[in-house]
Amino acid sequence: MAGNSFGKIFSFTSFGESHGVAIGGIIDGCPSGITIDADYVQSELNRRKPGQSEITSPRSEDDTVEFLSGIFEGKTTGTPIGFIIKNKDQQSKDYDHLKNVYRPSHADYTYDKKYGVRDHRGGGRSSARETATRVVAGAIAKLILKKYKIEVLAYVSQIGSVSMDNDSTVISSESVEQSMVRCPDVNSSEKMIALVQQLKKEGDSTGGIISCNIENCPAGLGEPVFDKLHADLGKAMLIINAVKGFEFGHGFKSAAMRGSQLNDSFRNEDGKILTKSNFSGGIQGGISNGERIYFKVAFKPVATIMKQQQTVNKSGENVDFKAEGRHDPCVVPRAVPIVESMAALVLVDHLLRNNLYNYNT
Amino acid sequence: MAGNSFGKIFSFTSFGESHGVAIGGIIDGCPSGITIDADYVQSELNRRKPGQSEITSPRSEDDTVEFLSGIFEGKTTGTPIGFIIKNKDQQSKDYDHLKNVYRPSHADYTYDKKYGVRDHRGGGRSSARETATRVVAGAIAKLILKKYKIEVLAYVSQIGSVSMDNDSTVISSESVEQSMVRCPDVNSSEKMIALVQQLKKEGDSTGGIISCNIENCPAGLGEPVFDKLHADLGKAMLIINAVKGFEFGHGFKSAAMRGSQLNDSFRNEDGKILTKSNFSGGIQGGISNGERIYFKVAFKPVATIMKQQQTVNKSGENVDFKAEGRHDPCVVPRAVPIVESMAALVLVDHLLRNNLYNYNT
Amino acid sequence: MAGNSFGKIFSFTSFGESHGVAIGGIIDGCPSGITIDADYVQSELNRRKPGQSEITSPRSEDDTVEFLSGIFEGKTTGTPIGFIIKNKDQQSKDYDHLKNVYRPSHADYTYDKKYGVRDHRGGGRSSARETATRVVAGAIAKLILKKYKIEVLAYVSQIGSVSMDNDSTVISSESVEQSMVRCPDVNSSEKMIALVQQLKKEGDSTGGIISCNIENCPAGLGEPVFDKLHADLGKAMLIINAVKGFEFGHGFKSAAMRGSQLNDSFRNEDGKILTKSNFSGGIQGGISNGERIYFKVAFKPVATIMKQQQTVNKSGENVDFKAEGRHDPCVVPRAVPIVESMAALVLVDHLLRNNLYNYNT
Amino acid sequence: MAGNSFGKIFSFTSFGESHGVAIGGIIDGCPSGITIDADYVQSELNRRKPGQSEITSPRSEDDTVEFLSGIFEGKTTGTPIGFIIKNKDQQSKDYDHLKNVYRPSHADYTYDKKYGVRDHRGGGRSSARETATRVVAGAIAKLILKKYKIEVLAYVSQIGSVSMDNDSTVISSESVEQSMVRCPDVNSSEKMIALVQQLKKEGDSTGGIISCNIENCPAGLGEPVFDKLHADLGKAMLIINAVKGFEFGHGFKSAAMRGSQLNDSFRNEDGKILTKSNFSGGIQGGISNGERIYFKVAFKPVATIMKQQQTVNKSGENVDFKAEGRHDPCVVPRAVPIVESMAALVLVDHLLRNNLYNYNT
Repeated sequence: MAGNSFGKIFSFTSFGESHGVAIGGIIDGCPSGITIDADYVQSELNRRKPGQSEITSPRSEDDTVEFLSGIFEGKTTGTPIGFIIKNKDQQSKDYDHLKNVYRPSHADYTYDKKYGVRDHRGGGRSSARETATRVVAGAIAKLILKKYKIEVLAYVSQIGSVSMDNDSTVISSESVEQSMVRCPDVNSSEKMIALVQQLKKEGDSTGGIISCNIENCPAGLGEPVFDKLHADLGKAMLIINAVKGFEFGHGFKSAAMRGSQLNDSFRNEDGKILTKSNFSGGIQGGISNGERIYFKVAFKPVATIMKQQQTVNKSGENVDFKAEGRHDPCVVPRAVPIVESMAALVLVDHLLRNNLYNYNT
Repeated sequence: MAGNSFGKIFSFTSFGESHGVAIGGIIDGCPSGITIDADYVQSELNRRKPGQSEITSPRSEDDTVEFLSGIFEGKTTGTPIGFIIKNKDQQSKDYDHLKNVYRPSHADYTYDKKYGVRDHRGGGRSSARETATRVVAGAIAKLILKKYKIEVLAYVSQIGSVSMDNDSTVISSESVEQSMVRCPDVNSSEKMIALVQQLKKEGDSTGGIISCNIENCPAGLGEPVFDKLHADLGKAMLIINAVKGFEFGHGFKSAAMRGSQLNDSFRNEDGKILTKSNFSGGIQGGISNGERIYFKVAFKPVATIMKQQQTVNKSGENVDFKAEGRHDPCVVPRAVPIVESMAALVLVDHLLRNNLYNYNT
Repeated sequence: MAGNSFGKIFSFTSFGESHGVAIGGIIDGCPSGITIDADYVQSELNRRKPGQSEITSPRSEDDTVEFLSGIFEGKTTGTPIGFIIKNKDQQSKDYDHLKNVYRPSHADYTYDKKYGVRDHRGGGRSSARETATRVVAGAIAKLILKKYKIEVLAYVSQIGSVSMDNDSTVISSESVEQSMVRCPDVNSSEKMIALVQQLKKEGDSTGGIISCNIENCPAGLGEPVFDKLHADLGKAMLIINAVKGFEFGHGFKSAAMRGSQLNDSFRNEDGKILTKSNFSGGIQGGISNGERIYFKVAFKPVATIMKQQQTVNKSGENVDFKAEGRHDPCVVPRAVPIVESMAALVLVDHLLRNNLYNYNT
Repeated sequence: MAGNSFGKIFSFTSFGESHGVAIGGIIDGCPSGITIDADYVQSELNRRKPGQSEITSPRSEDDTVEFLSGIFEGKTTGTPIGFIIKNKDQQSKDYDHLKNVYRPSHADYTYDKKYGVRDHRGGGRSSARETATRVVAGAIAKLILKKYKIEVLAYVSQIGSVSMDNDSTVISSESVEQSMVRCPDVNSSEKMIALVQQLKKEGDSTGGIISCNIENCPAGLGEPVFDKLHADLGKAMLIINAVKGFEFGHGFKSAAMRGSQLNDSFRNEDGKILTKSNFSGGIQGGISNGERIYFKVAFKPVATIMKQQQTVNKSGENVDFKAEGRHDPCVVPRAVPIVESMAALVLVDHLLRNNLYNYNT
């Protein structure tokens, strides 16, 4: 009941602190016979890692995944897949000044209140470094989704005050990856990069929004009344560090609309049942209906800024604090593979769950 | 792995269709020795039920809860609490015309695709009637929260285009309940009522937003890295019928902000560690920090409208469809106790989970 | 985490005390499209109920199951199946003398120590009456097993000192049910009945052994390394009231044997891989191998006897105690359908779990 | 729902094959602030490892545990504890002859039937090597039990036909560990050693029985009606490789007894409620009553013998097979720490679960 497992059938348990020996995890419930393309897994990890471009943190974490079990002669065996990513370039001494201070809007204070003891180095367990393990698990989930031709594609649609509002932008893996901020619209991408560089100079940070499309998801995924597909996607997004909001389909804008505007009429097109519009976002009653699933995820600015802030220390004294070390002014571009990974974990879990119960098929 | 249980320690399993014999549930993991005020539970149910005011559906569902086990001489015994709410006033024939039609933006189509068979009467399992069972479980959760002096208070902050923007409004159980739409701001409440009445005439529907405050939540609740408190709250809200979005703290607006604006400085005030601002919404790193927790939930308009719509039937033929029967143009006011119930279930579950692991206390 | 749910995919949650309003349960995860033969379910319940023969308790519990949800037009819908069995013939006053006494070898003392409060009437939650709900769930599981032609057949092989040692006895539903003690060997059956009648006169009780065969179980069921098929069967048996031991295959006798005696050689017989002997009991490495699964379950004597015993009361005073009311001198014959039900629940759960992961099939 | 996690609150997930890179696991739900004595953990591992005495396999597996997370400055932090044990001395070529053969009474055939693919080297996932990870988790569980002064002590009470029948034997850690076969009775121990040496010469194997006592377990552990303490202990034992039976308290012998013989009378002794006898084995109604808990576990002979056997290969052809390599004629002595570890995992899980629900304490 500690919260380090995710997924009920395709289940992922993670471990590891930012500056411990290693981070890693176990995937239990992966079907046997899946070919594991280790290069693909590593390439996904590389999309997340720091130091990948001039606007990210210069920490050169190597982030090399080592698989320890569950794969034999290149294929999954149905037994648990254990893996580790060793922590290198730790420079733990960078963090001695954090031992007794509660950084504003970080998890230092709450971890101390909850557990009484805390690995303060680099945020310990609360560090976003832990999300590297999710990207490994997510990459394996994506390999399974490929067999079903399901595609998960996330991209940055807002950084700070810069929104991508060009509706005709082509969203593709290529258009996303060609941008340093993973925004497929070239014009918006440039503005976003400029903003991030400006913030870096100022020692400040900013938030953003990641949008995500899921294509070719079959109808039937989702387990009402409590494990609705969109709710599991929402939870998956909300457990990404710095996320403050989730909406799917027409989202918050739905509140101001009328039913007559927002209902998605069904139609039969060449023998296939489709909807004319897709305000529902591909999910109705918690179950996918075969249309595109789409959602948005809001990220707050990184809490670490290079400005002096007021806070308290472990003894409860009011102190001034200024961060040191190496940090990103905006982590949203690096969160794109994490969003995709978490979505992929949910989809595989629900694919397997849906296979379970439909007695007739 | 079917999705009809919620909560890991304080666990609620629900059953029932809109027009079956009864709906009900089992609460497992309720501590022993809790005094159950049955009148309070019933009063919570009454806040959800149809027909409670002139702007809601005139169906007079009686919604009387009957406890079957787990309570002895007025107190919980630590054994599972089973309960039922009988379905009355069923008028199932009202629904014969729905047998083969897939209503737009309802779950008819997706249930048929998933399960192959479906109780079409009144939406069956996908009907919001099922949420009555959650209100029973939530009321018991609230009785536990009272022992900890934790209060969950939800209210309507938007209906259609009418937002409550008066920041000085007193949010209290009284100010909320005196309003037919459960909006504590008298001025906004009147506008909302007028809008709902207008929509009723037009046979249309609208969405809205429910805001929720949690007061006096102790620090330490939440189980990183996957069962973060806000993520479990988010999932709990997303599994309420018609919900399309969830945000906590500064939410989606955080995306456009800077770290220097949004960081919550800690301060020691009379020996208590507090934050100066509360953009975090009372949760940091997935763990409550002792400040107010607050979040917003977006509801889409009810899919049932009294207008002719295009759709398909079970045979895949394009047909016209117009709803019959009795429906609310806006269910958001009746969803207020459901929001509170789901939040209470999450809080009790996390209270118990947190008690578990803190070895030092 | 309270322990009132059983099974991971085909999941059963039970509620209810012996003298509350009703007992009942929810089956979640039952595939859709299963035809529910309500008469069959009731007939299974009747095999368990008291008063079914002259050697059982004369309490005339009616034990009528009422299904409340999850079944529509005679078939399961894939939604949770809720059901209740009302408690009648309660005569709670019979139990006033038990309010403050801890009966020897009953659960009165341990429930009080654990929960601090206890429904003392008829044993409350610890009463074997609760097993009626398992028989309902088990009967539905058996209906699913029938689709796979899997048969679960239990019988009494020992009562007190009388063992059934005739290896040529035909074990069939008919040979078992024709015996008042559910022992298929006519000769042993008569001796057992005589023993039970003698004990009834003496006001004493006795234990016994139930043997169980599972026929036509396909190879592949069981989830190593922790949810091995025999371990889940073992746990299922050990949670039947009064059970003290479980063994499968050659069981405890294996300890004294040599590998060269006990190994089951494989052979190819007409294209089918079988084993020459079956000391393994149909399960190897925790996974079924297609051979007959068989196991034995040991029951202690009923703790309720009509003799004066020494014990303590709630205040800790040493007191004398003599049971009143109506009790069976040997419940083992009535436990036969419970053994079958628990085995069926395990098998269906593992059938569904096994369907999940084998990617290639 | 794959079966590689054990425990609900103190949860252990294992991974690893006999000849993969490493075996290991994650403990999630360990309370914070526990001092981890790494030497103690290693000493427990050494009790299980091969090559520890002249009667065990000469494989010199090093079995060194490496902790990767969850421990900071010698104490647990409440975050998941990840660990690995690297596989050395693999000599995988020893196993090439096993690639296509189904060894009698091994799991080769069933793994192939279930998963379609199998790491054949040294038994892969079905190898008892995996139990080393359980001993690591169990050692940490024991460190928690020590805080509660609960002791788990297992010993060999039978090997082959040699039973330890001296009731006056002192059962202590010392008396057990001074024996090469972990039988505390010196006389029986010598006979057992002679038997094992004889079997080694003959190339045969034998089974045995391990008995286990749990001292100082407080009353209240166990979660009826499905997670009864003895049932979770029983399952824990049945998932140890080669186990065929489990009994607790008076066990199978209860079947032939009368209630008047077997009931445990309560008595108040100096203000403490005890039982005069303890046929119940310290558990009543599935909940510990404060008396000694004791149980027995039956092991079949190791399936690997140095004699020619008949079997089939993957193509279904009948073939002769003779094992090569290095094997123990009797693994029961090495299973003693595994029995203790599994029992400790169950006890800690139930300790934490029991802390949860008793509202009044």
